[in-house]
Amino acid sequence: MWNSFFGRAFRDLRSSSQLLVLLGISNGGLLAYSDSQADVNALVSESAPQDAQKKKVVVLGTGWAGTSFLKDLDISSYDIRVVSPRNYFAFTPLLPSVTCGTVESRSIVEPIRNIIKKRTLPLTVILRELNLATEIVPFSDALIFRKMEWFNFMKLNVSRLTPANRRVLCRSNNGPLIGKEDFMLDYDYLVIAIGAEVNTFNTSGVMEYCHFLKEVEDAQRIRRSVIDCFERAVLPDITEQERRSILHFVIVGGGPTGVEFAAELHDFIQEDLVRLYPTVQDLVKITVIQSGEHILNTYDGRISSFAEQKFQRDGIEVKTGCRVVGVSEKEINMKLKSTGEIFSIPYGMILWSTGIATRPVIRDFMEQIGQSKRLTLATDEWLRVEGCQNAYALGDCATINQRKIMEDILDIFRVADIDNSGTLTVTEFQDVIQDILVRYPQVDLYLKSQHLQNMEDLLKDPQGNERKEVDIEEFKIALAQVDSQMKSLPATAQVAAQQGTYLATCFNHMEQCQTNPEGPRRFRKSGRHRFQPFRYKHFGQFAPLGGEQAAAELPGDWISIGHSTQWLWYSVYASKQVSWRTRVLVVSDWTRRFIFGRDSSRI
Amino acid sequence: MWNSFFGRAFRDLRSSSQLLVLLGISNGGLLAYSDSQADVNALVSESAPQDAQKKKVVVLGTGWAGTSFLKDLDISSYDIRVVSPRNYFAFTPLLPSVTCGTVESRSIVEPIRNIIKKRTLPLTVILRELNLATEIVPFSDALIFRKMEWFNFMKLNVSRLTPANRRVLCRSNNGPLIGKEDFMLDYDYLVIAIGAEVNTFNTSGVMEYCHFLKEVEDAQRIRRSVIDCFERAVLPDITEQERRSILHFVIVGGGPTGVEFAAELHDFIQEDLVRLYPTVQDLVKITVIQSGEHILNTYDGRISSFAEQKFQRDGIEVKTGCRVVGVSEKEINMKLKSTGEIFSIPYGMILWSTGIATRPVIRDFMEQIGQSKRLTLATDEWLRVEGCQNAYALGDCATINQRKIMEDILDIFRVADIDNSGTLTVTEFQDVIQDILVRYPQVDLYLKSQHLQNMEDLLKDPQGNERKEVDIEEFKIALAQVDSQMKSLPATAQVAAQQGTYLATCFNHMEQCQTNPEGPRRFRKSGRHRFQPFRYKHFGQFAPLGGEQAAAELPGDWISIGHSTQWLWYSVYASKQVSWRTRVLVVSDWTRRFIFGRDSSRI
Repeated sequence: MWNSFFGRAFRDLRSSSQLLVLLGISNGGLLAYSDSQADVNALVSESAPQDAQKKKVVVLGTGWAGTSFLKDLDISSYDIRVVSPRNYFAFTPLLPSVTCGTVESRSIVEPIRNIIKKRTLPLTVILRELNLATEIVPFSDALIFRKMEWFNFMKLNVSRLTPANRRVLCRSNNGPLIGKEDFMLDYDYLVIAIGAEVNTFNTSGVMEYCHFLKEVEDAQRIRRSVIDCFERAVLPDITEQERRSILHFVIVGGGPTGVEFAAELHDFIQEDLVRLYPTVQDLVKITVIQSGEHILNTYDGRISSFAEQKFQRDGIEVKTGCRVVGVSEKEINMKLKSTGEIFSIPYGMILWSTGIATRPVIRDFMEQIGQSKRLTLATDEWLRVEGCQNAYALGDCATINQRKIMEDILDIFRVADIDNSGTLTVTEFQDVIQDILVRYPQVDLYLKSQHLQNMEDLLKDPQGNERKEVDIEEFKIALAQVDSQMKSLPATAQVAAQQGTYLATCFNHMEQCQTNPEGPRRFRKSGRHRFQPFRYKHFGQFAPLGGEQAAAELPGDWISIGHSTQWLWYSVYASKQVSWRTRVLVVSDWTRRFIFGRDSSRI
Repeated sequence: MWNSFFGRAFRDLRSSSQLLVLLGISNGGLLAYSDSQADVNALVSESAPQDAQKKKVVVLGTGWAGTSFLKDLDISSYDIRVVSPRNYFAFTPLLPSVTCGTVESRSIVEPIRNIIKKRTLPLTVILRELNLATEIVPFSDALIFRKMEWFNFMKLNVSRLTPANRRVLCRSNNGPLIGKEDFMLDYDYLVIAIGAEVNTFNTSGVMEYCHFLKEVEDAQRIRRSVIDCFERAVLPDITEQERRSILHFVIVGGGPTGVEFAAELHDFIQEDLVRLYPTVQDLVKITVIQSGEHILNTYDGRISSFAEQKFQRDGIEVKTGCRVVGVSEKEINMKLKSTGEIFSIPYGMILWSTGIATRPVIRDFMEQIGQSKRLTLATDEWLRVEGCQNAYALGDCATINQRKIMEDILDIFRVADIDNSGTLTVTEFQDVIQDILVRYPQVDLYLKSQHLQNMEDLLKDPQGNERKEVDIEEFKIALAQVDSQMKSLPATAQVAAQQGTYLATCFNHMEQCQTNPEGPRRFRKSGRHRFQPFRYKHFGQFAPLGGEQAAAELPGDWISIGHSTQWLWYSVYASKQVSWRTRVLVVSDWTRRFIFGRDSSRI
């Protein structure tokens, strides 16, 4: 962890413009300083024709997937247009902290232009630019301007994708004062990373009365809403019953977001608000409603039950086996799954965090490309959208439709059976093992789940004896259970970020790999795949539970719970920040909270 | 300045609860710790009957005037109800810095409850509470709860004042989810400190299309709007002319707020935005429109012309002698005062900062108390609202209607002429000099303006020779010009804060001064005034001009301009912060800006 921390530190330092200034100065003969802005513009516009040959890449979204793609992409090789309604990247795992002011909203965002501005360019690109530079501007400035020219960010909403003519229709969200509302972009490659929207399961009243927690603005709204509840509860001439209702905070969904918000809110109230609103401290109640049997049910059972016990000690009520059937202005209606009984409780504020749903613009896109029957946009293992040329989708807006090994079993057998004998020898099998492992990641998971050392063990007979040869039927039986290990990836920042980095690497090697493909052997067609398929590496997950305690699933099935885990959480989240600015701000926010507490001003 | 800095530091430390904890522990025999919240509540509710005898003070507003009143008031002597739509105090002189992210909005606000929580109580009160404390709660907590009980803050808008029955009608602004909307408060004393609203001079389109800068939310909106302008300007397929219009920032009003915003915006663009939006850097324009001949015309001429020269160097256009006659969606229409010519210019954003106007609720109040013909609410020199019993008004919402000495001249003569001789001897005159100086502050100003040493010089004959006696006519002639020195106080934070402190002192000595009045002799009636009248002390004013330069008028007619003044500005503004939390945050914001620049995320 500390390794990665300092590794990143070094990378960020390298990318800062100071180094470029040094470079520029050490090449003093070539360059001179000038204040003339006209020169800079000349430099910028001069290079425009060169870009005409570059492939146009339109990137939709600046979340985890989009940003990590842009961070690692060689921006000098493409004509890049980025479309997003937000001109910044937000470190979403800290959103629950923003809702209660443990961390300020501005500490977790970084303008996407800033991220690009500070990017390290490959040395070859710097040297090329140095040779091209004939204008009298500081070289570091010229490089920044050049980066900004390669990178066209547009603060727009995507309103429609038309893959038939490779176009994206966008709409301005910058207020009413613009003459032009709609913009049409054409692309050679489309990278879709627009994330998902909240899933209300069509429950009535949710859109009107519930808070969500997907954007920075959501967190700011929740923060204001919590303070509003307390301010309302201390107004004169209200019955105690009304005060209790106003101070009832309900969280629908016992996943990581809901649980972390409940914990943050409990800390905020106990550590800060109780002293400012002492007359109503006994009336506060926090309830977590979970449809399943346990909260945090994607985590290890030990974490889940620790969280439930901690919440019980803290007085946070956990209602499991309950489904919300409707929300009205003052009440939330629920159905107890076991008995079917419907009851309602009054509330002051509701956070709805029950999972994600496909955005309408993606749904429309899916209909155009023949995916209308699917729930989410499907890509192959190379993140290419199925049924659509030159479109990639990553992050929460898509799922990888992983290929079943049983679909290809005949082709695998045919390719492996070099001598066409109709049977597979161990030697013949060994020849394709590597390709199978790369192409079908479920094989690896299956071996682990069966405690098998290597793939050859699959070919043993039921008694565990090695076989010299297997025929197609025996081969089918051996691999029959493998596909049961296929899992779709969770909709997390970790997955999205890894997908972004993976796709950037593919784009950076696009030409190179066209001639020298680096992927596994194709079993259905001849040759090899151009790239290795995407493979997710799980680094574990955290669940902060409040009161300076956290739980963590670490790689290798380790579970860590308690205060030390909270400190691990602090370190990891500090190290994972996208820039030194946000890192310093987040750490100083945590420090500020320890010293002064959280601010309860309603702004 | 540093003196006041450390003086304040010491005061804040004293007021922190640590000292109270120590006190509590050192009195260990009396007190014990308990987690039981019920005990605390018992303690809180037990003391309620005692408060029935206390006078009810309703304070409207938590700006400079209201907060400084509350900070210095002995809250244990009154039953205090504070009404404000904002539950925090905002350090408004830093609002222009918030518009561009030099300082974050949360760094300049402090919850009003927090300010009260941290208040120092008089030792007598602490000792009294210590004696009353029989419940087993930590004494420091008990004191905090007691303070919170004495201090009832209500986040409400004032909708009507009805002085006839001593009532204030308030309305909830906490969202739609409250059953009760209206609240009625009755009072014994009313302290009106609700400030003023922006003055549009009924110019059409101003409310719809212009930004103001009075609240923290205004500053946040402006910040988003500036970024929006840049994001709109870099969208594709817009003409250069349109880009120029979008990037035209117009400031109407060349007062301190407008000038400081122009300077901040210029720095933000030149230091931060130019590198992120290099393609449009030449299209940006900032224009300040001033109806008078010079900007900063309430400042010394040297500051005003320095500011104009600096703006010219920076490329900020200053249009003087122009009056805005209307604002439409894309254009601002102006009239050149000299020629009467009307012309219009396109804009991207407008800040309207042309002065203040009376709020409707005050206007309605004025009509009820017979002040309907006045422009602003008038008080006497003791801040008592004229024509209304037990109501006080301070800060921007009122002006002091200062008494003319010529109105009282006969009474002064009568009182001073002890022997009823019809003439005044120097000895007789000396007897009333002090009372005159206190009652009529304009006398002091007049003496200074005439370079006179003391008041006796007024009685000299036109040749400058001392006179033994003056009669009433000669006395009138001697004082005839004095009232010309009367000035109404500026609508600044400095005035409001001093008025708040002054009024708190009056309230703290209310009973004591009833028996032993400390004010000057009454000339019209017998006896003395209960308190000294309010006297404003001007400590100078700053005008930050951007590029780390500022101008300042310091006490004693000193003018300071340049980089060192900017550092003086930093020190004074850091020292004047309302709490250690905001002080630390503001200083770290400045540091953050030096290291990382300003953030341009549009949140």
